[in-house]
Amino acid sequence: MQLAFIGLGAMGFPMARHLAKQHEVIVWNRPHLRPGTLWIDATSGDPNVSRETASRLAAKGVKFVDAPVTGATVGAENATLTIMVGGSAEDFARAEPVLKIVGKTIIHVGPVGAGHAIKVLTNSIMGATVWITSECLLLAKQFGIDLKTALAVTNAGSGRSNASENLLPMRLVDGKWPLIFKLVHHDKDIRIAASIAHQQHASTPLLALTQHLFTAALHQLGDKADYIEVAKVIAEMNGTTWEAS
Amino acid sequence: MQLAFIGLGAMGFPMARHLAKQHEVIVWNRPHLRPGTLWIDATSGDPNVSRETASRLAAKGVKFVDAPVTGATVGAENATLTIMVGGSAEDFARAEPVLKIVGKTIIHVGPVGAGHAIKVLTNSIMGATVWITSECLLLAKQFGIDLKTALAVTNAGSGRSNASENLLPMRLVDGKWPLIFKLVHHDKDIRIAASIAHQQHASTPLLALTQHLFTAALHQLGDKADYIEVAKVIAEMNGTTWEAS
Amino acid sequence: MQLAFIGLGAMGFPMARHLAKQHEVIVWNRPHLRPGTLWIDATSGDPNVSRETASRLAAKGVKFVDAPVTGATVGAENATLTIMVGGSAEDFARAEPVLKIVGKTIIHVGPVGAGHAIKVLTNSIMGATVWITSECLLLAKQFGIDLKTALAVTNAGSGRSNASENLLPMRLVDGKWPLIFKLVHHDKDIRIAASIAHQQHASTPLLALTQHLFTAALHQLGDKADYIEVAKVIAEMNGTTWEAS
Amino acid sequence: MQLAFIGLGAMGFPMARHLAKQHEVIVWNRPHLRPGTLWIDATSGDPNVSRETASRLAAKGVKFVDAPVTGATVGAENATLTIMVGGSAEDFARAEPVLKIVGKTIIHVGPVGAGHAIKVLTNSIMGATVWITSECLLLAKQFGIDLKTALAVTNAGSGRSNASENLLPMRLVDGKWPLIFKLVHHDKDIRIAASIAHQQHASTPLLALTQHLFTAALHQLGDKADYIEVAKVIAEMNGTTWEAS
Repeated sequence: MQLAFIGLGAMGFPMARHLAKQHEVIVWNRPHLRPGTLWIDATSGDPNVSRETASRLAAKGVKFVDAPVTGATVGAENATLTIMVGGSAEDFARAEPVLKIVGKTIIHVGPVGAGHAIKVLTNSIMGATVWITSECLLLAKQFGIDLKTALAVTNAGSGRSNASENLLPMRLVDGKWPLIFKLVHHDKDIRIAASIAHQQHASTPLLALTQHLFTAALHQLGDKADYIEVAKVIAEMNGTTWEAS
Repeated sequence: MQLAFIGLGAMGFPMARHLAKQHEVIVWNRPHLRPGTLWIDATSGDPNVSRETASRLAAKGVKFVDAPVTGATVGAENATLTIMVGGSAEDFARAEPVLKIVGKTIIHVGPVGAGHAIKVLTNSIMGATVWITSECLLLAKQFGIDLKTALAVTNAGSGRSNASENLLPMRLVDGKWPLIFKLVHHDKDIRIAASIAHQQHASTPLLALTQHLFTAALHQLGDKADYIEVAKVIAEMNGTTWEAS
Repeated sequence: MQLAFIGLGAMGFPMARHLAKQHEVIVWNRPHLRPGTLWIDATSGDPNVSRETASRLAAKGVKFVDAPVTGATVGAENATLTIMVGGSAEDFARAEPVLKIVGKTIIHVGPVGAGHAIKVLTNSIMGATVWITSECLLLAKQFGIDLKTALAVTNAGSGRSNASENLLPMRLVDGKWPLIFKLVHHDKDIRIAASIAHQQHASTPLLALTQHLFTAALHQLGDKADYIEVAKVIAEMNGTTWEAS
Repeated sequence: MQLAFIGLGAMGFPMARHLAKQHEVIVWNRPHLRPGTLWIDATSGDPNVSRETASRLAAKGVKFVDAPVTGATVGAENATLTIMVGGSAEDFARAEPVLKIVGKTIIHVGPVGAGHAIKVLTNSIMGATVWITSECLLLAKQFGIDLKTALAVTNAGSGRSNASENLLPMRLVDGKWPLIFKLVHHDKDIRIAASIAHQQHASTPLLALTQHLFTAALHQLGDKADYIEVAKVIAEMNGTTWEAS
């Protein structure tokens, strides 16, 4: 099969390399958009934009699925990405064998846009969980509880999450704040989730407050900050830091 | 050693039974409060009240540790409870061998009140996580994503938590809403966490909003509701239900 | 001058009548959209939509100003409306003499969309003020303070607002809940304000929470409710009513 | 009558001067606390503390009313203060003629603590109104609407309040930020209001969020800031300032 691939960045390059082992991968240009083409959008995007794109492409006989990936660059290297696909059953069936070359778990989550939607929604859950866990850990610290102990208890019990197990210990206990995922991108995801809520005329107060707190943190920390650095803003809002006192 | 035990309920009875195998367990009455006695408070309580109690008891030469437990009735039966202890190092050393009889993991978390504090704080993290996860799953459902799929994707990725893995699938996918932990008790825990924040002059907006949403849900659902039923209130706030449409 | 007028409702009919005294007012149809025409949009709308409309009309040589009105039907009858105009200085100059016939205070607030923007923003301030005032009055009531007294003190002091002076006394003290302005319209205004914030990448947590609380109230009260009935929802969230106890 | 007066500050000194024209005003000391004495607490305080104080004094046969004042130092100078009194009808009858010497409007608002309660509640309404009005004015400004115009429109319409009429124009339009009322005191009032809500097991999400935003602003601005300077924090949360652009 002939595949056109756009976007050879940190994620895209290894993905394209895997594809090139089994298919002819070419540089994309507009003549390729002939009827019957399947457009696979593996970026992170706005599901409402995806729907509009799909609708515009459909007028030209071009099919569209959104297929955002998770698993970080290591997952792209090892072809172990998880890929969430939005689109018709028929288009998913066409996309699946191609996506299996670059990813391990390929899930058909729903209609066009559903891949983008579920990605920003789960990232928003993570964002809110990072924030509430940081608030409560700060209260624990100020009560005189050692942060390492507070995290151990949290992870042994009901408050356990990806945030408490994998994201916060390195920062709050070890004081290491690597740049893993830019806050500006996380804020974008949560803002897309908020716009899904708006579109649905939904009442989601906790998501809304999370979004506005992340946006304020972004304005304060700037475009180069890592997303977990919001925990620093939480400490500042309380006139303190995460340093051991 | 002679032990006095108060509170033979669903949790207390098996705990007392384990203790009675190794110690003389007696019915408590006030003459027992002689100097040197160690008071172990295994209930869920307000850490500020614990501090006041400890201070009052100290005047009589009585020592105090707070030692709330987690692990549910099955943990009490099998003596596999996790117990978080607040108190001095010396008093913890006296309490530990006794607590090892009824629990598996005994953690010294900090000064008097710290056991009670960390318990309500981790329960508050759980409460907020239940709420934000429900909000985002409802948006996913209304976008046309199957709830089972949405939960599977969440649990395979960044938004994973105790709430998404263990608490929500049974209710939202299987439609089973058992009474595990009363909302009135969970609301009490979150309100105690909010009062810790108040005491510390803290700014914790997400915890605050979570508390007021839970309290509103409690006023709406009544004293007999299970804590996960807040998800029903979230659906009502959006003019819908969790039923498959 | 020849004027085309669309929308002869409760507001539009008296407005058109005033215009007809000085100008030829005709039924509108598409041939009227010739270059040089000035389109005056006196409805309540989304400022971003206004900008798109203005842009589309500009391509045809048609000018556009948004000119939403306040002052209720009585103001339309008496030609005492306040009109907030968004558009270029030149277009405002053309619109002003026409608008003076139907309104008393004509304000040029800014570029295209600014009229619509300032209208939904001030309505959002009002919405939030109604909500916070109701919350605090409910606390006063539950403390044992007579509502009439609580409102009198509020209006004699720092917490005074249009909400406390004109909107709440009739409902909370006299128990009269007339339908003045539908909640479904007020919710729409606040949601437009929220979308302005989204568009600007703004952090406005209080506006966001207000919007989500109003939307939840709308889902609960239904499309026929008056906007001040949100105060009833606040009482329900607290397991009580506004009735004297 | 013999009156004992404590607290000769900016407010107290002119108040005591007015009283001294008609009564013997003495320096207070504990022997004055004889049965039958009426204790008038004109400070701003926590209504729950007032109730405890009243209860303690009652045991000694001493009566208590809380009577916080509003009207600023100019009101104290001119004896035009508004005074909100909490206490029994009988005790109010005794306090009223004395309070009439220092104030103009003396209102019996309810039982002991009601004076303190209504004061912090109305101040909280003001705080929330300052915040939401600032948020919406910032959105207006960023939309291209002149702040002076935005305030004029707000004050001509539905969003009008003490905040928009008297507090914000001087700061946002004229750029003058005088120290009128310390943020640390306003934050204290809102925190007392939040504790009333807590005491009542109330759900007041907008008050709660307002409190946590004010507390964060206080931690950021410090103890010397004026309460309206929270508007500066709102601008910072949006990566901008109130300066004309």
